[in-house]
Amino acid sequence: MTVLLTGFEPFDGSSVNPSWEAVKLVQGVRAVRLPCVFGEALDRLRAAVSEHDPSVVVCVGQAGGRPDVAVERVAVNLDDARIPDNAGRQPIDEPVIRGGPAAYFATLPVKACVAAARAASVPASVSQSAGAFVCNHLFYGLMHLIATERPMVRGGFVHLPFTPEQALGRGVPSMPSATAATALTAIVTAAVSVGDDLRLVGGSLH
Amino acid sequence: MTVLLTGFEPFDGSSVNPSWEAVKLVQGVRAVRLPCVFGEALDRLRAAVSEHDPSVVVCVGQAGGRPDVAVERVAVNLDDARIPDNAGRQPIDEPVIRGGPAAYFATLPVKACVAAARAASVPASVSQSAGAFVCNHLFYGLMHLIATERPMVRGGFVHLPFTPEQALGRGVPSMPSATAATALTAIVTAAVSVGDDLRLVGGSLH
Amino acid sequence: MTVLLTGFEPFDGSSVNPSWEAVKLVQGVRAVRLPCVFGEALDRLRAAVSEHDPSVVVCVGQAGGRPDVAVERVAVNLDDARIPDNAGRQPIDEPVIRGGPAAYFATLPVKACVAAARAASVPASVSQSAGAFVCNHLFYGLMHLIATERPMVRGGFVHLPFTPEQALGRGVPSMPSATAATALTAIVTAAVSVGDDLRLVGGSLH
Amino acid sequence: MTVLLTGFEPFDGSSVNPSWEAVKLVQGVRAVRLPCVFGEALDRLRAAVSEHDPSVVVCVGQAGGRPDVAVERVAVNLDDARIPDNAGRQPIDEPVIRGGPAAYFATLPVKACVAAARAASVPASVSQSAGAFVCNHLFYGLMHLIATERPMVRGGFVHLPFTPEQALGRGVPSMPSATAATALTAIVTAAVSVGDDLRLVGGSLH
Repeated sequence: MTVLLTGFEPFDGSSVNPSWEAVKLVQGVRAVRLPCVFGEALDRLRAAVSEHDPSVVVCVGQAGGRPDVAVERVAVNLDDARIPDNAGRQPIDEPVIRGGPAAYFATLPVKACVAAARAASVPASVSQSAGAFVCNHLFYGLMHLIATERPMVRGGFVHLPFTPEQALGRGVPSMPSATAATALTAIVTAAVSVGDDLRLVGGSLH
Repeated sequence: MTVLLTGFEPFDGSSVNPSWEAVKLVQGVRAVRLPCVFGEALDRLRAAVSEHDPSVVVCVGQAGGRPDVAVERVAVNLDDARIPDNAGRQPIDEPVIRGGPAAYFATLPVKACVAAARAASVPASVSQSAGAFVCNHLFYGLMHLIATERPMVRGGFVHLPFTPEQALGRGVPSMPSATAATALTAIVTAAVSVGDDLRLVGGSLH
Repeated sequence: MTVLLTGFEPFDGSSVNPSWEAVKLVQGVRAVRLPCVFGEALDRLRAAVSEHDPSVVVCVGQAGGRPDVAVERVAVNLDDARIPDNAGRQPIDEPVIRGGPAAYFATLPVKACVAAARAASVPASVSQSAGAFVCNHLFYGLMHLIATERPMVRGGFVHLPFTPEQALGRGVPSMPSATAATALTAIVTAAVSVGDDLRLVGGSLH
Repeated sequence: MTVLLTGFEPFDGSSVNPSWEAVKLVQGVRAVRLPCVFGEALDRLRAAVSEHDPSVVVCVGQAGGRPDVAVERVAVNLDDARIPDNAGRQPIDEPVIRGGPAAYFATLPVKACVAAARAASVPASVSQSAGAFVCNHLFYGLMHLIATERPMVRGGFVHLPFTPEQALGRGVPSMPSATAATALTAIVTAAVSVGDDLRLVGGSLH
């Protein structure tokens, strides 16, 4: 069973992106590094899916300031960029896919993924918003691809905290890449092996 | 033009709910207090819409811990309760409306609403997740009602911080109800008067 | 009984300082606005104490990002400026008063002051650090003045959150100046009327 | 040159204390585990100092919720316990040492210690308050011992974030013990080798 993991190149002035630092440490998967650019990231993802024909796709991104690994649940049909991407594009309030539905749910078993990361001693939680920058753009594009062309693929998105190097002098939470990679490995294993998702408390109140 | 505002009764051990404390201060609108109960809140909202036949509906809820007024953008078809509601119900990973779409966007001009609140000197921002408790349940139910039965109604959801009384001894942000009511008044005015939404930076990165 | 309250001028690019906005609303006290400048702030405080001969002195400052009113407990003999003051001075690891003790405790009844603010429905807490910028500088200088020249004066320092105007678009907690002034009034009343401090739980774990 | 590191036993319902988990990983030092009990912790520290006759003493504790390694700068003569210690004692507003000065500064080169931790890629910062629980109690007691009996010893205190295991399901920052131990090793090395402290920006505004 082929698993595709993607990470992003650095953006917003950082010299690393925690997603690629962690993804490249995970064993037994196809790992692809994507540009942090609207449109182009999605083109490259589609090419990688065509090339590797995976059963599971987990895209990974940076969520600077979050304290734990976030398994995203909802991809929204919205590009609303607070800052320009790496190609200087800054879409505001545009759809990812014109005419697409407002949102897709991840088809990963998100509660089981969180439980697996925690069982591996890595703090993790379900998240209900992947933002409206390139991460959500890629996540929505992936789920649209799955919905329209590859219904047998399980797909989802995971956000990682800053690396310790990124957090130096900033007073924000961080997570070493080896720890994040442990979580990704556990999440991939759950994605491959769990049938129906677990029924666990994990919602957010607001 | 009739505007319907709803607030919630207290929940989770509080003696007040900031949403009702603020909603009842807003002039010139129909104000309805809803139970913090899955299903029942939505039934009461539908009854109020039938009774008042509003052009604009803004439901308001409590987001304890948030520092500012949050104009919600996305209602998700998901009930995932971290705690029981006021009737003891705790749905986990169930749809709000079986067979409904994954999400609806608010039809309020959300960026213009945020700008209006700020122009009234009240901190506000766009939020991409209303959680998965009774607030999101009501928000999704409202947008489904609008989509299926009342397409001319503008609808959305606003989350408020704790009142100062709720924050005593807890070390969390708060906002006086009069300040929150000022924001709601500005938001309602924008909802009534703004045609197309403003094209303003305001997305979240993750 | 004369009470002297001081607030600061704006700094760090703000157009207001919440301390002066609140102090000028308090009735029945002498209110003085101080420059946000090392040394000069303290000179002006000494002059005001000479002029008004107060029984109670409460200096007030801005603590951007804090969610509640903080009654400071400890003034430290340390100037360590993260940013330049309004005169461009940026002392690093220098004493406020060469040869002075490492710290002074406030002589306000800090627990009673917090209880009084809460009784007036304003969130408040005891703080164990006033930082190392001009606020702590002034606080230490005040307590040194009291210790060496005016032992009958009760003195202390209170930190306030941003005003709502300052918080616009920043996603940080805020407090209206009227609310902050209510807390200051309660604190001054406690400072004037409470003999021994209350014995209440209120310490921080770290 | 002998270095003494101390860590604490677990408290407040945790099964581990990050301080001891990290201290026991540091090579080349004397490591002692202390009870989380007012008075007793200090007695055991004094005994360990007598036994090992160290040149450097760094006491380490848990600061649950903090995102980085905190090198403490100020020990305050105050016991003010928010919760009972492990022996059920809960002193409120009592001095650590009756008649002792209000505070002592750490005699570690705190800025150099922070720089050393960062050079080892571990997020760290100077902290101006070690709280008012057993950590500050021990820190003050250590500095009083140094001031009164062992003036040649360099001493200080370091606070660590939760371990990842402690953070599971809590949505708070964490740091693996191996990462924390890397920081402690760097801090000890700086404490042993740096003469005068570095003059670096690092103060807090409030």
